[in-house]
Amino acid sequence: MRINGFKSAAHAGTLRKEGRLDIGLIVADQPAATAAVFTTSSVKAAPVIWSAGIVQSGLCRAILVNAGRANACTGLEGLDDAKASASTLAAELGGSQDQVLLASTGVIGERLNMEAIFAAIPQLVGNLDESSLPKVAEAMMTTDTVPKTAQAQGEIEGRPFKVVGLAKGVGMIEPNMATMLSFILTDAAVEPDTLKAELKKICDQTFNCITVDGDTSTNDTVFAMASGAAGNTPIDQNNAQGRQELGRVMHEVMLELARKIVSDGEGATKLVHVELSGAKDDGQARLAAKTVANSPLVKTAIFGEDPNWGRIMMALGRSGAEFDQYQVGIFFDQVEMVKGGMQIGLEEDAAEIMKKDEYTIAINLNEGPGQARIMTCDLSYEYVKINADYRS
Amino acid sequence: MRINGFKSAAHAGTLRKEGRLDIGLIVADQPAATAAVFTTSSVKAAPVIWSAGIVQSGLCRAILVNAGRANACTGLEGLDDAKASASTLAAELGGSQDQVLLASTGVIGERLNMEAIFAAIPQLVGNLDESSLPKVAEAMMTTDTVPKTAQAQGEIEGRPFKVVGLAKGVGMIEPNMATMLSFILTDAAVEPDTLKAELKKICDQTFNCITVDGDTSTNDTVFAMASGAAGNTPIDQNNAQGRQELGRVMHEVMLELARKIVSDGEGATKLVHVELSGAKDDGQARLAAKTVANSPLVKTAIFGEDPNWGRIMMALGRSGAEFDQYQVGIFFDQVEMVKGGMQIGLEEDAAEIMKKDEYTIAINLNEGPGQARIMTCDLSYEYVKINADYRS
Repeated sequence: MRINGFKSAAHAGTLRKEGRLDIGLIVADQPAATAAVFTTSSVKAAPVIWSAGIVQSGLCRAILVNAGRANACTGLEGLDDAKASASTLAAELGGSQDQVLLASTGVIGERLNMEAIFAAIPQLVGNLDESSLPKVAEAMMTTDTVPKTAQAQGEIEGRPFKVVGLAKGVGMIEPNMATMLSFILTDAAVEPDTLKAELKKICDQTFNCITVDGDTSTNDTVFAMASGAAGNTPIDQNNAQGRQELGRVMHEVMLELARKIVSDGEGATKLVHVELSGAKDDGQARLAAKTVANSPLVKTAIFGEDPNWGRIMMALGRSGAEFDQYQVGIFFDQVEMVKGGMQIGLEEDAAEIMKKDEYTIAINLNEGPGQARIMTCDLSYEYVKINADYRS
Repeated sequence: MRINGFKSAAHAGTLRKEGRLDIGLIVADQPAATAAVFTTSSVKAAPVIWSAGIVQSGLCRAILVNAGRANACTGLEGLDDAKASASTLAAELGGSQDQVLLASTGVIGERLNMEAIFAAIPQLVGNLDESSLPKVAEAMMTTDTVPKTAQAQGEIEGRPFKVVGLAKGVGMIEPNMATMLSFILTDAAVEPDTLKAELKKICDQTFNCITVDGDTSTNDTVFAMASGAAGNTPIDQNNAQGRQELGRVMHEVMLELARKIVSDGEGATKLVHVELSGAKDDGQARLAAKTVANSPLVKTAIFGEDPNWGRIMMALGRSGAEFDQYQVGIFFDQVEMVKGGMQIGLEEDAAEIMKKDEYTIAINLNEGPGQARIMTCDLSYEYVKINADYRS
């Protein structure tokens, strides 16, 4: 996986576990158009605070990412650590610290091992090449069981361009993009404002439509960088066709990454699409779909392959969405289980669908035109095990 | 456990499992002042719809409760079943069906076994006595491991009075009083409106301050009935002293029941008090406390006895409460773990507290006067097991 205009490297810096890649670097050959979306949490990690300031210029050069510690809840010292990482990297690259983006993931409340980071930076810069993006995806992993990458291509002004993406994230995943990091790189030329608008829109359609446990992290970050190496005229807000094509390709990459995150949800054994239609409006549809997708009782029923649709009704009932309970319909894939709020399907038919690794629960509230689609996973013994033991 | 003015009975009606008590009856000697609080879910079970209509008169005679099936999502037939239960009981007791309250708990979406209920009613009425309340508490159980009762006494106009309470509830427990049933009986004389006001206020302070999994049921019901057998002048809104004393005793009983519900939370091994202070107002305090108390990551850390306070910060951050992350303080009982948003305590000290069966996580946002207190439990393997297997 390569992308013109960017180089990368990863290193085993003993930040997480001995001998494991845990720090990664992506560098644009030239300062590149850059956009970002961050956690909505009011508790923001130091790298988020740092990067949110940096990215406002719309032009950045590098992304430095580490696993092991989140550099969140580390006070002013944590901000100093972030700044020191950026300035050390900038000196090594020969550029400004104000073009260095940072992302961290791992345990909250412990300071970064700065000695390890200072030692890693020259190694990373010395090893930059065009083929190390998969290794960066590996270096970002925490409880992820697989590195997550995706790519797609398109054409602008007759020129081919590419979008590649890296992501990490398994727990604390909620529609507000929780504990996930993702870096989206393209060789298309794009104006920073346009890149920002597309990134925000597509985040809402992809990363913000997944949920593992409803928890939201302090460190969530999506960066998008556009090198312009494809040679097209920079896409701006007035170029509707260019925006559409860029959006299509970014959407393909980001949806694939979102899907990989849910599939790799902590302890997940199932990928379930909750498709909600017939709500009063899209906002209520999202509220209802999200409440179903996050309900521990629904998620344990998915794990147990139990077509206990009553729990779906229960979750809808407490969601705050307005509807008439005697109008609700529920399908498990093609099996119509509930009509008019009552069971009409056979449990064994729904149970058959629930044995699949991936299926859709389609809910129609029959109240209005609102719709939403959320991807979720089940709640298993393994989720409890991973999270009761995470730090030990 | 007895209470003047009421009789009760329980029966093994094969509604849930062969040979197990699963239907109970409480009858007031005379129509009694009655108040109720119901689920806030928009999906309401038939017995809730029925009882909400009945209770408006403020005078009721009987409570019929069954386990096994919830009679929720059963359509108009479910409402007919509820009405038939009430009218059959009324005929047997020699009274009006409009004074018969109903409560059901169990699987959603399956109709009641009416033959079993019709067969049970004469048995129940024939066996009414003054000592069967504990058996009614047993007949209400679903995944509860113990029946839940509490009692307390007070004095009005120099006359002693008593309040007794029964409750069931273990899963789908959330601050909006989810899947729980509770019946509060007193021999004090109380005007219906006053009973209703006290019941609502004390529900907010007790049952609505507990959470097991954030899920809310279709059947939640709290009934309060006052027989007046204590012989005091009926307490009305103008009798501040009487209200206060009645409230004190009801609070004692309902808090004890709430505590028993959390302790018996599905798979729960710990009872944790989340005490939140320093929020902008009480509403924000409740929001923040509830988000911490419901977070799967916090609850698995409690189960794992891991003083991972970063997860508490994470939950606060996504709660929507306004605060400055650099001002937050967190105690585990007397151990000050976090000050100014950063760790100052020793992990081993906090870990020692977390080994206890019951402790307090006290959080100060240092932002204003708002406070709230929520009782929660941990999220264990057993919770997943119970809920993946519940119907099998």
